[in-house]
Amino acid sequence: MTETKRRLNLNVGINTTGYLANAWKYRTGDRHDINDPAYYRRLTELAHRGRFDAVFFSDHPALLTDPLARPFHTLDPLILCTTLAAQVPDIGFVATITSTYNSPYNLARRVQSLDIVSGGRLIVNVVSSFNPNVAANFSNAPLPPRSERYPRAIEFLDVAKKLWASWDPRREGEVPPDRFWDASSAHTIDHEGQFFHVRGPLNVPRSPQGHPVIAQAGASEGGIELAACHGEIIYCNILSRPAGQAFAKKVKDKAIEVGRDPSGIRIVPGLVAIIGETREEALRKHELFSGTGSEDGLLARFAKENGIDPATFDPDAVLDAERFVPDQNRQWAVGMGLGLSDLLTHEKLTARQAVRRSEGHHRLVLGTPEEVADQIIDLWEDGTVDGYTLQPPRAPDDIEEFVEKVVPILQDRGVYPREYEGRTIRDRYRLPYPD
Amino acid sequence: MTETKRRLNLNVGINTTGYLANAWKYRTGDRHDINDPAYYRRLTELAHRGRFDAVFFSDHPALLTDPLARPFHTLDPLILCTTLAAQVPDIGFVATITSTYNSPYNLARRVQSLDIVSGGRLIVNVVSSFNPNVAANFSNAPLPPRSERYPRAIEFLDVAKKLWASWDPRREGEVPPDRFWDASSAHTIDHEGQFFHVRGPLNVPRSPQGHPVIAQAGASEGGIELAACHGEIIYCNILSRPAGQAFAKKVKDKAIEVGRDPSGIRIVPGLVAIIGETREEALRKHELFSGTGSEDGLLARFAKENGIDPATFDPDAVLDAERFVPDQNRQWAVGMGLGLSDLLTHEKLTARQAVRRSEGHHRLVLGTPEEVADQIIDLWEDGTVDGYTLQPPRAPDDIEEFVEKVVPILQDRGVYPREYEGRTIRDRYRLPYPD
Repeated sequence: MTETKRRLNLNVGINTTGYLANAWKYRTGDRHDINDPAYYRRLTELAHRGRFDAVFFSDHPALLTDPLARPFHTLDPLILCTTLAAQVPDIGFVATITSTYNSPYNLARRVQSLDIVSGGRLIVNVVSSFNPNVAANFSNAPLPPRSERYPRAIEFLDVAKKLWASWDPRREGEVPPDRFWDASSAHTIDHEGQFFHVRGPLNVPRSPQGHPVIAQAGASEGGIELAACHGEIIYCNILSRPAGQAFAKKVKDKAIEVGRDPSGIRIVPGLVAIIGETREEALRKHELFSGTGSEDGLLARFAKENGIDPATFDPDAVLDAERFVPDQNRQWAVGMGLGLSDLLTHEKLTARQAVRRSEGHHRLVLGTPEEVADQIIDLWEDGTVDGYTLQPPRAPDDIEEFVEKVVPILQDRGVYPREYEGRTIRDRYRLPYPD
Repeated sequence: MTETKRRLNLNVGINTTGYLANAWKYRTGDRHDINDPAYYRRLTELAHRGRFDAVFFSDHPALLTDPLARPFHTLDPLILCTTLAAQVPDIGFVATITSTYNSPYNLARRVQSLDIVSGGRLIVNVVSSFNPNVAANFSNAPLPPRSERYPRAIEFLDVAKKLWASWDPRREGEVPPDRFWDASSAHTIDHEGQFFHVRGPLNVPRSPQGHPVIAQAGASEGGIELAACHGEIIYCNILSRPAGQAFAKKVKDKAIEVGRDPSGIRIVPGLVAIIGETREEALRKHELFSGTGSEDGLLARFAKENGIDPATFDPDAVLDAERFVPDQNRQWAVGMGLGLSDLLTHEKLTARQAVRRSEGHHRLVLGTPEEVADQIIDLWEDGTVDGYTLQPPRAPDDIEEFVEKVVPILQDRGVYPREYEGRTIRDRYRLPYPD
């Protein structure tokens, strides 16, 4: 591990028009941006200007066809990250890929290749997929149950790690002049598991990072297990200090349980920042970008989303945490719902307060640039989180605003770098290099 | 279709150290080149200088581990083509991908994304894989028989074409200001076939070329069927005029049989060119690069490869074509062996003559730059072939030599462009845009 001073890590999500489904009406640009590689280049250059560690592409391999919504995952993230890495220096790339609908050999090869061509700038976010619309694009079999998808994801990464280490030029001995290489630098892996049989070796050697950094998202029990076994950067929903500390402890305890050193785990939750000249202005922008239009709108949406009868709904009554525990068996991503329930477990909040604490399931920080910077530093300073994955309501506008107004404050406070340091993502996240 | 004057099309293979396994000993560079993206960039820039239509990456997803040979397929071709397309303008990219070990949705999405980010410069070479070492990297099931792999490849591309057309912004009507898009521009494909069930739509829209150009390689009966149904650029082994005409007729007749207009098919066989100041010098280089060292060495290899008893072998006796027909049932790529048998069917040759007509299964042209140019133009002029895929024995050396010495002759003869014309590969190959 590279020994450098702990500092705030920041990624930024740059999917299509920004994170919030309804905020596109208030953004700069037109709707053709979402399939335009030049647009993603501009966003990545903007992120580079803000010294972000990485741009983050969430993904699911299906088109959202709701006529009232917008397509959100379009160009393939691996292809997009590869072309952007060739055009923008320094910055890293988080590419989301499903382990349920890829084979370990192809995936291990592609991402190792990208780690090589980018000079060690890839983070691969392995997800197990939870959407039946995805399943329907791959076969007529239903989505496998979560109880199968997560063990498969864990074994998938076991196989990938064996493949990533299977051809290592550092094992080469002297190569005589009439030979091209020392073939003993490559060996088969002969993996025979529950889900996969893979012989190897991989036809791509060790990459600058040893292998890409592994990100993990998803906070169901299976997700925590995956994070504990393989996750290096954990993307999650953390709405408060005690909830964050409890979550990090849970992941790290589980890591110890499976025999892994938890010091190689970074907690980098999603964050929605809405900046105003004043806090009042930020509140109004929140109401607009959320699509609810007003505080009453926010409250009405809260009631609806949580199945609360509007007739009996008192937005100023303290909420009962028990009421908000998500069902582990439901189809949708469990982790997305855990944030609110965790928050309410640790803090007594009314609905009027709660609606200002999260947006799009992530922690919401609202206010002036100084207030936003304070709130970001607050949970980082004591180690509750290692950084954040900024999810801008609108792209490019909210990235631009953050880069211009909040980043200089973070730099002035000495918690965030003015220039890129280190060579790879592992250096910048102080993550160990695999042996 | 764009109406332009017919001209010679040229691609160039740039795998690792060059096409011939033993020629690396005589090349410039070191063995670390094969995994160095900067090396492939230099080769692509060199190909761009020579105004090649495309660089070609053959592939199989397994490592060649023979200690006496060299790894030949390493970095993933899709990733490599994506990063190169971002760095080198104009030139196209042929990425080889197996339909046996990929899913149509993922593949259709990735290649359509690459066609978009490259501005319409992708050719995808769909192969069915013939190597049990590949199969072992994907499961413990054996390689499916050819009789299953080719029907699967054909259906794979049927599905891909439906997906590529499934989201087409040209279908959009007026989009009211409170909507982001016209969702009727996307529709499901609901494909239910023998091998695949895919709902769609694809989450990537139509690309600049409509969809990537489809290349096809492999001349078994199944391969011809695939070429007839889907192939636009046919990579093959053509060692003589009559063999080439017979092959083209076979593919085009089959295309008509399956209801396709054969005018959208281009024949672009492999070609090994070895250039000398004199023909004698080229002959000596051939002996070196082939690894046989002498004409006797070439003849000994010929006898061995074809199972001829050296005791009774007369290198100056006319060969019997029947003796060289490859077994359709063998495991190895059938097309690779067809070239020689086709050649001998149409020309009476001794072994001493035959060994100078092909190298690495492809047509060999030997001599001064003028002689090489003459031989290239010869089969192109009357339409036997539409161009060639140059397979340089050594990279970069033989690409450099070709670009410096042969390309200017082709340009002076008026058969080959001095500058890139048109926008996409379809323009340069005069291929129709899909509806």
